[in-house]
Amino acid sequence: MSLFDQLQQFQTWFNAEIDKAFAHIDQNIAGKLHQAMQYSVSNGGKRVRPFIMHTVGRMLDIDDKTLLPASIALECIHSYSLVHDDLPAMDDDELRRGKPTCHIQFDEATAILAGDSLQTLAFELIANADVSAEIKVSWMQELANRSGYHGMCGGQALDLAGENTQLTVEQLENIHLLKTAALLQAAVNMATACKPAMDKSEKIKLDNFAKNIGLAFQIQDDILDVTSTTEMLGKPQGSDEKLNKSTYPGILGLEQAIQKADQVYQNALEQIDNLPYNTQTLFEFAQFIVQRKH
Amino acid sequence: MSLFDQLQQFQTWFNAEIDKAFAHIDQNIAGKLHQAMQYSVSNGGKRVRPFIMHTVGRMLDIDDKTLLPASIALECIHSYSLVHDDLPAMDDDELRRGKPTCHIQFDEATAILAGDSLQTLAFELIANADVSAEIKVSWMQELANRSGYHGMCGGQALDLAGENTQLTVEQLENIHLLKTAALLQAAVNMATACKPAMDKSEKIKLDNFAKNIGLAFQIQDDILDVTSTTEMLGKPQGSDEKLNKSTYPGILGLEQAIQKADQVYQNALEQIDNLPYNTQTLFEFAQFIVQRKH
Repeated sequence: MSLFDQLQQFQTWFNAEIDKAFAHIDQNIAGKLHQAMQYSVSNGGKRVRPFIMHTVGRMLDIDDKTLLPASIALECIHSYSLVHDDLPAMDDDELRRGKPTCHIQFDEATAILAGDSLQTLAFELIANADVSAEIKVSWMQELANRSGYHGMCGGQALDLAGENTQLTVEQLENIHLLKTAALLQAAVNMATACKPAMDKSEKIKLDNFAKNIGLAFQIQDDILDVTSTTEMLGKPQGSDEKLNKSTYPGILGLEQAIQKADQVYQNALEQIDNLPYNTQTLFEFAQFIVQRKH
Repeated sequence: MSLFDQLQQFQTWFNAEIDKAFAHIDQNIAGKLHQAMQYSVSNGGKRVRPFIMHTVGRMLDIDDKTLLPASIALECIHSYSLVHDDLPAMDDDELRRGKPTCHIQFDEATAILAGDSLQTLAFELIANADVSAEIKVSWMQELANRSGYHGMCGGQALDLAGENTQLTVEQLENIHLLKTAALLQAAVNMATACKPAMDKSEKIKLDNFAKNIGLAFQIQDDILDVTSTTEMLGKPQGSDEKLNKSTYPGILGLEQAIQKADQVYQNALEQIDNLPYNTQTLFEFAQFIVQRKH
């Protein structure tokens, strides 16, 4: 099966599981908040982070059902960050994946609360998962570390501070490692956390793979923001430029940015080259990241 | 020692421990975000939730150091909720405990991120605590459940939905159970979680004590918003009325609201009346909640 078909099959399954998870949450507590949370998680995302988590899981013979609370939790974290990033005080975006952002569809206060509750839900799902307490703690540790001040939120703060400033490539890379790569690392590490006996050097290689893929993903995002159209992106084209954000094409020029993406992609592939597992899907996934058009 | 002295001694110790915790977090990752997080947690709070957690802990012979990650985590959650509640799209408050709110002191985007990262930090602190994996999971479960959609955030959503609406006493009580009582229950339950062998009915009584204290606290808050001054409150007096919020004095009249506070206070005391522990401080604490003037 092609990666495209695999990803599509995964998305169908995963989206249904998200709907099931929300069906278990009592709508009568606060109906509008429930709607806003579900709207934000169900908003047509590519499910890249859950997909990579389950791909590593399958590679290591971990049951999809076992990983599900972890992957939904991770997607809740990703979704909350988008809801808050889109707010008027942050990136002020009205469209996300071709649909109104949460604060446009509902209102700003609801969007703030929906983001907050989605973050909490992530940890609630982990706490209630059907795995050992040790694995739950590893998941919590990984997710909190990669998504908070030491990861995604820290990166977002640096990203905001860097607006209207000419950053160096190193500064930009640091932002993307925190803002984007960190959650892909969480995806991989939450899978390998289910295998306490696994060789540590293999875990580190997979972590490094995710880190480089995250960077490649972000460079590609910057490139697409310049080369693609609003319709293809599902969000306004040129929005980085609008916000005076430093980008790889902006600093390096488009051609060198494309070369940089390819170099980081090669770094990623090197990491998984000699692993004693079937890494075919990971290879194809890395290719997908740098060749995608939206 | 009087409760006032005990609370003051506790605050001094706890505030120093919060400073130590922040000194361990690398400021170089994102300096402004670090500052905004620490500012928001160090903003002169009464530390009511940590105090009740450690009071129950001491009653059950649990070491203060053992509980510290849980109590700081709980205070991070409380602080993040205040930072987000104060935002222009929510309660739009410029003063909190006599000092500029986070989005006034820094900016709105930073305040959103500081709130987000404080929530994450709570779970990071729990993940890294020096207790068994089982206790960490209980803490995570309790904190996530009481602070998210099923608790505090749900209550805040209902509170916002109820603005400019005449609520019934039952609806108002439901809001306060979720918005305020839930975190006090978390405080008590995170302490008793360290005693897996403790009689379950005793745990339930302590949970009910916290629930009633939470309600009494909120009724008293509503009463003080009418009867106190801006200077005494450290926030604008009459802010509930300004926002057209339903309050106990608003629905019941001031005299009946005061009676209601007393009734809920008596309910709280009943719960701990026959517990086989030294509940002296809890009694005094309950009294403090209904007799405080700010």
